[in-house]
Amino acid sequence: MLLFPVAARRIITLTSDFGLRDGYVACMKGVILSISPAASIVDVSHTVSPQDVSEGAFLLASVHNYFPEGTIHLAVVDPGVGTARRPIAVQTSHAIFVGPDNGIFMSALAESGAVDLSTGRLGNARAVELADPEFRRLPTSQTFHGRDIFAPAVAFLASGVELARLGPDLDSLATLDLPRVRRRGGAIIGAVAHIDTFGNAITNISAREIPDRPVIRAGDAEIEGLSASYQDRLLAGIIGSSGFLEISVRNGNAAQYLGLRKGDTVEVRGAR
Amino acid sequence: MLLFPVAARRIITLTSDFGLRDGYVACMKGVILSISPAASIVDVSHTVSPQDVSEGAFLLASVHNYFPEGTIHLAVVDPGVGTARRPIAVQTSHAIFVGPDNGIFMSALAESGAVDLSTGRLGNARAVELADPEFRRLPTSQTFHGRDIFAPAVAFLASGVELARLGPDLDSLATLDLPRVRRRGGAIIGAVAHIDTFGNAITNISAREIPDRPVIRAGDAEIEGLSASYQDRLLAGIIGSSGFLEISVRNGNAAQYLGLRKGDTVEVRGAR
Amino acid sequence: MLLFPVAARRIITLTSDFGLRDGYVACMKGVILSISPAASIVDVSHTVSPQDVSEGAFLLASVHNYFPEGTIHLAVVDPGVGTARRPIAVQTSHAIFVGPDNGIFMSALAESGAVDLSTGRLGNARAVELADPEFRRLPTSQTFHGRDIFAPAVAFLASGVELARLGPDLDSLATLDLPRVRRRGGAIIGAVAHIDTFGNAITNISAREIPDRPVIRAGDAEIEGLSASYQDRLLAGIIGSSGFLEISVRNGNAAQYLGLRKGDTVEVRGAR
Repeated sequence: MLLFPVAARRIITLTSDFGLRDGYVACMKGVILSISPAASIVDVSHTVSPQDVSEGAFLLASVHNYFPEGTIHLAVVDPGVGTARRPIAVQTSHAIFVGPDNGIFMSALAESGAVDLSTGRLGNARAVELADPEFRRLPTSQTFHGRDIFAPAVAFLASGVELARLGPDLDSLATLDLPRVRRRGGAIIGAVAHIDTFGNAITNISAREIPDRPVIRAGDAEIEGLSASYQDRLLAGIIGSSGFLEISVRNGNAAQYLGLRKGDTVEVRGAR
Repeated sequence: MLLFPVAARRIITLTSDFGLRDGYVACMKGVILSISPAASIVDVSHTVSPQDVSEGAFLLASVHNYFPEGTIHLAVVDPGVGTARRPIAVQTSHAIFVGPDNGIFMSALAESGAVDLSTGRLGNARAVELADPEFRRLPTSQTFHGRDIFAPAVAFLASGVELARLGPDLDSLATLDLPRVRRRGGAIIGAVAHIDTFGNAITNISAREIPDRPVIRAGDAEIEGLSASYQDRLLAGIIGSSGFLEISVRNGNAAQYLGLRKGDTVEVRGAR
Repeated sequence: MLLFPVAARRIITLTSDFGLRDGYVACMKGVILSISPAASIVDVSHTVSPQDVSEGAFLLASVHNYFPEGTIHLAVVDPGVGTARRPIAVQTSHAIFVGPDNGIFMSALAESGAVDLSTGRLGNARAVELADPEFRRLPTSQTFHGRDIFAPAVAFLASGVELARLGPDLDSLATLDLPRVRRRGGAIIGAVAHIDTFGNAITNISAREIPDRPVIRAGDAEIEGLSASYQDRLLAGIIGSSGFLEISVRNGNAAQYLGLRKGDTVEVRGAR
C-alpha cells in the first residue's frame, strides 16, 4: 500500500452528534488548533441524531470521496464513551479516520476494500488503538474522548506524527449491523438508508444493480422507470448524486408523502 | 469596467437550502479544497427554506457588501436543477456570483447597477454560462450541480482562472418576481421581505423613502415615529442594520405579536 | 501581568444568538476578513437562546480554556444594543474578550481571577471601552454593534493593534446575576446551569466540592454515588468534561426524564 505524503496544510473534517447549541465542537477545534495551528477544519455535520452510529456511518460514506488525498476525518457518535470500546485511527491509501471503534467508519472503509463488512477484518488499510498517553490530553475525561483523545490524535497526525506512534496495531474493527441488499426471485430488496433535508428517501440500492426498465415499490407506491431530474415527475425514482436509488416528490417531501422511514423496504424488479 | 486583481487567498461564501444534517455542503467544500486548497470558505447560511429562491436572494443582498473585493459567492437554491435553467457566473466590479440562473443573484446585482431588475439585462457586469466541461466534475450528475458544476467553478475562479474561460457570454439573466415598493396618494406601500431569527419584520422600504414624521401601519398596528434602538419602545419602527424599515417588539417577537408574514403589506405615510 | 506576543495567524471565536438562518454572522465574518484577511475564525455557537446573556456566559466559560493563548473571543448576546451599555474589550494573560458590557464574559473571567464576580472589579486583566471611531465601521448602526463595533475591534486586535488604542481604560465591568453554590447544614445547594443537546443537566457544583460518598437530589430523584461513564447506570450523577456535576440518563434525556430545567435546585450531601 502506498501512503500519501504529508501535505503542508492538512484538512480535518468533523462529524458528530454534539449539536449546535453547546461548546463541545468548539472545544475540539480549540484543542486541534492548539496542536496544529495551520490545520484547515471542515464541519461535515454535528446534527447526527443523538447516538445514531449508522447515520454517522452513512454521512461519512457519502462525503469522504470528495475530499483531497490525505484528509483526516474525525467522527464522534459515541454512546459507548468511557466503556471498553477502543479509540482508533485507520489509515487507507486515501485518508485517515479517527474516532470510536463502533462501526462508524465501516461504510466508508468497505467501499474501498479497506475492511470486510461482515468480519471487520482489515484489508488494504492500517489501524491502531489510540493508546499512547503522549498523544492524549491529560487527565483524560471518561465522558469526552472527542476533546481528550480524538482531537489531539487528528491534530498530531495533521502535524506529521506517524500513525504507528499513536498505539498498537489492530487486525480487525468492530462491525456495524446495516441492512444489506438481497435478491428474491427477480426482485432486488433494499431499504431506505437515509431521509435527507428535502425529504428524499435515499436507498442502499446502487445504480448498477437496477435493471433496464425498473418498477420500484416504496410504501404503497409503484413507480415505473427512472427520472433524470427532480422536476421530471410528481413521484420519481432517480439515481441520486451518490449513485444510489432515491425516491423523490417534485417540490415536495417524498418521505412524508409516502410515510417512508429509515429502514423501510424498497423493492425493484424489471418490467415484464 | 475595472476588474479587481486576483488575491493570494480568495474568499468563497456558500449559501444554500441544503440544511445541516446531510453531507451536501461538505461535498461542495471537499471539491473546492481539492481544486483550490488555499481558499477561505465562509458559510452564509444553509438553512434557507427549501427551494425558496427569494429568501436566498434576500440573504445574498444583505451580506455581499460586507465582504472584501474579489469575494466569490456560491449560492444554490435550485428547484430547477437538471432542467433547462442555465448554470451561470456573474462578475461585477466588486465580486463574482456563481449558481443557477433563477434570479437568486438579482437583488444583490441590482443594487450596484449590474443588472436591470425588470428585464434581466446586464449593465456594469459580465456573465457566462458554465458550459465548459473542462471546469466541471465528470460525469456531471443531474441532481447535484452544487457539487459538480458550481463548486468546481468557484474553485477554479479562486485559483485564477478567468471568467471568460468557463463558457459563452450572456447578455441577460432570468428575473425574479419580488414585491416592489409603490406609492399611492401620499403613502408608501411596501412589504415584509424577511422575518429574522428574533422575529423582526424587515421590510423592503428603504430609509431614504421614509418621510420626516412617519406613521407606519403593519398588521393591525399603527406606529408613530421611528425609534433609535430595539429597547426604545414596546412596539417600534426602526431603521435596521441594512438601511430598511423593520418592525420590532422589545425583548419579543414582532412577527408573532402582530401576526406578520413574509409578503404582508406595510404602509408608511407622513403625519398630518 | 505578562501579555502574550501577537502570533502570525490569530484565532477569533464567535458566539451569538443570531441564529443560522440570517446573514448577521456572515456580515461579521466579511467585516473581520476585510480588515484581517489571515484571521482564523471559529464558530462557538450562534444558537444561544435569544437575548439569554447567562447562556452565552456559560458557553464561553466552557470553551475558552481549550483555545491557544492569544485567542480573541467575540460574543454578542446583546439585548441592550443601542442603549447606554458599553462596548468593551478585556485582555487577560491568556485571551481577549470583545462584546457588550452586560456580564457575558464574567464566568470566563472570574475563573482566572481576572474579575471579581460580585463587584465587577478588574483583577489581573485590562479592559477598555471601544470608543475610538477609528476602529469602528462608520456610520455605526444603533442595532448591529456586532458588525460595526465588535467585528472591527477583533479584526484590528488580530492585526496587531494594541488594546489601549481602542478606547479609555475601565476599572470595573457590569456583573451578572448567576446562581451561586451555597451550603446549608451538611448539604451543598447548587443549580442546573445548562441543559445540553443530549439532555444532560449540567450543574454549577464543582467536582472538588462533592463529598466522598455523595447522595444527589435532583427533581424527584435521589442518586447515590458517582458514575464513571454515561453507560454506567440508568440514572447517574457524573463529573462532566468541564469538572462539574451532571445528571444523565443512559441512552436518554435526563432533563426530560426528571423534568429538570435551567435554574432548578440540585442538592448534594454525604451519605451517613
